[in-house]
Amino acid sequence: MSTGCVIGVDLGGTKLLAGAVDPALNVHHRATHAARGADQATVLDAVVGAVHEVRDAVEAASQTVDAVGFGIPCLIDARRGVAVMAVNLPLANLPFRDLMAERLGLPVFVDNDANGAMLAEWRLGAARGTHDAALLTLGTGIGGGLVLGGVQQRGSQGAGAELGHMVVQADGPRCQGNCPSSGCLEAMASGTALAREAAKIARGRPASGLGRALASGRELAGPLVTELAHDGDPAAIDALAVVGRWLGIGITNLVNIFNPEVVVVGGGVIAAGELVLAPAREVVAERALSPSREHARIVPARFGAESGMLGAAALALDGIGALA
Amino acid sequence: MSTGCVIGVDLGGTKLLAGAVDPALNVHHRATHAARGADQATVLDAVVGAVHEVRDAVEAASQTVDAVGFGIPCLIDARRGVAVMAVNLPLANLPFRDLMAERLGLPVFVDNDANGAMLAEWRLGAARGTHDAALLTLGTGIGGGLVLGGVQQRGSQGAGAELGHMVVQADGPRCQGNCPSSGCLEAMASGTALAREAAKIARGRPASGLGRALASGRELAGPLVTELAHDGDPAAIDALAVVGRWLGIGITNLVNIFNPEVVVVGGGVIAAGELVLAPAREVVAERALSPSREHARIVPARFGAESGMLGAAALALDGIGALA
Repeated sequence: MSTGCVIGVDLGGTKLLAGAVDPALNVHHRATHAARGADQATVLDAVVGAVHEVRDAVEAASQTVDAVGFGIPCLIDARRGVAVMAVNLPLANLPFRDLMAERLGLPVFVDNDANGAMLAEWRLGAARGTHDAALLTLGTGIGGGLVLGGVQQRGSQGAGAELGHMVVQADGPRCQGNCPSSGCLEAMASGTALAREAAKIARGRPASGLGRALASGRELAGPLVTELAHDGDPAAIDALAVVGRWLGIGITNLVNIFNPEVVVVGGGVIAAGELVLAPAREVVAERALSPSREHARIVPARFGAESGMLGAAALALDGIGALA
Repeated sequence: MSTGCVIGVDLGGTKLLAGAVDPALNVHHRATHAARGADQATVLDAVVGAVHEVRDAVEAASQTVDAVGFGIPCLIDARRGVAVMAVNLPLANLPFRDLMAERLGLPVFVDNDANGAMLAEWRLGAARGTHDAALLTLGTGIGGGLVLGGVQQRGSQGAGAELGHMVVQADGPRCQGNCPSSGCLEAMASGTALAREAAKIARGRPASGLGRALASGRELAGPLVTELAHDGDPAAIDALAVVGRWLGIGITNLVNIFNPEVVVVGGGVIAAGELVLAPAREVVAERALSPSREHARIVPARFGAESGMLGAAALALDGIGALA
């Protein structure tokens, strides 16, 4: 790391991951802290502690930290660095960026976590070299990112690219968190929706792997469904296909709206790989308009489990003009 | 017209309208020709005839024509000036721009009609002065236009901004034309959808104005429904409200995806004004995310019946760098 590095911080609802990252998005040091259920002062202290821990490791190796980036899973006013609405963290309406800059004595950059993931995938990942790209991150909710005309688009207030909150089935199930709508893509194709579909299928097919897991009292969350599907359980494969077909409806909309070169799919659910992407591609082939449907590649994200932290680092590297 | 003007041509499926237009989008001369059911050579001759007619009128007033613009209701490869797919006109895969430039001896610009309408509304209409705006044109189908980050966005092949082909009710009615999908916004909120909803309501309420119109054998197309609604017929008002609420679902998606300053609604159906916009605004208030929902204005287009021709003129004026 001859050119110095930045620290990226993935600030989730239950834990925070901080990492020292160089301009090519290689990770050099890491620190993880729990943040579950804490009050505001405790969360801020944990953040500062994690950054100091990583910074000490960097400086012990005679290198420098030039900036810190934060990706937060909520609506961000990126110009002011304020979390406008935070579902799982006690940070709403806090001047987070300025506060952290003061406590850390370093330049600080803050944005929505999916915008950070889009930046990382665009500059160094699965959307590299494109001018028109969209990203969906399938986790507990669904985040979105957009690059159009060679520029990352965040909307007029920095609250845009909420691609998970496209209505795809107006009379569908209620959405979650602060979303007042129903039948959003997030309600149909997130990890939460996968768990709901898996439970429904498990109840109807008690002899299947999914059914036996339900009977034994295990929680049918995304990782278990994916594990059972990879082991060949047809019921688990069917649950992923239901979610994959809804994902395909969402991607159809993105293809028709943006005529993109690539749609990148990340987040925890993409651990299922082709079990969720193949049904999605089938729906796009059936439903999207030509020539956009032939033109758009639909691919998994390059950056996997650490995409939140790497995206946050990308925000900081981009902010100081150092991103490769 | 001291600075010269351009000719804009709205090339519809049944008639073509050509007009001489100055840089502030004032119209000075007009010509209308029928084009219904004609073969390719006849359509091209009619186009050339209409342009010559308007050009003669301009030159008789000692003024000049600097360029010609065409707005065509189909997918356009804007870089090559070729209509990739034309639903109602025998122009598919014709090198339309180059052919017209040769026959007319003038610079020629060609784009999708809704992209032209977006350009006109953005530069001189209801979206003037904004950096992030979306447009929907509600006619037989639904066209779309997008301005994001201060740049008009057409996608990687010029086939983007097909906002009418967002799926909003995946198991809804089949879409129309070349669209293979179901439950697109176009299938729920276009003039075609309005006629379908009006017929359904008319059958259930034979004593209403709509019901009597149906019984007398009249076609329940958009203009008649709007006329009956303006005259106070509750059944016609209800039909417009159904379409308006679906329009609101589509606008909710645009608000969440783009965090725009304004969403402009044009096309024939917007003759119903608040009868369709008020229900749409209600749905956006119920369903879209904050702060985007409070921020986005939802307004009718400035340019009405001649928006196609003015949009085509705007394309030509923009092409030669003369648009006000």
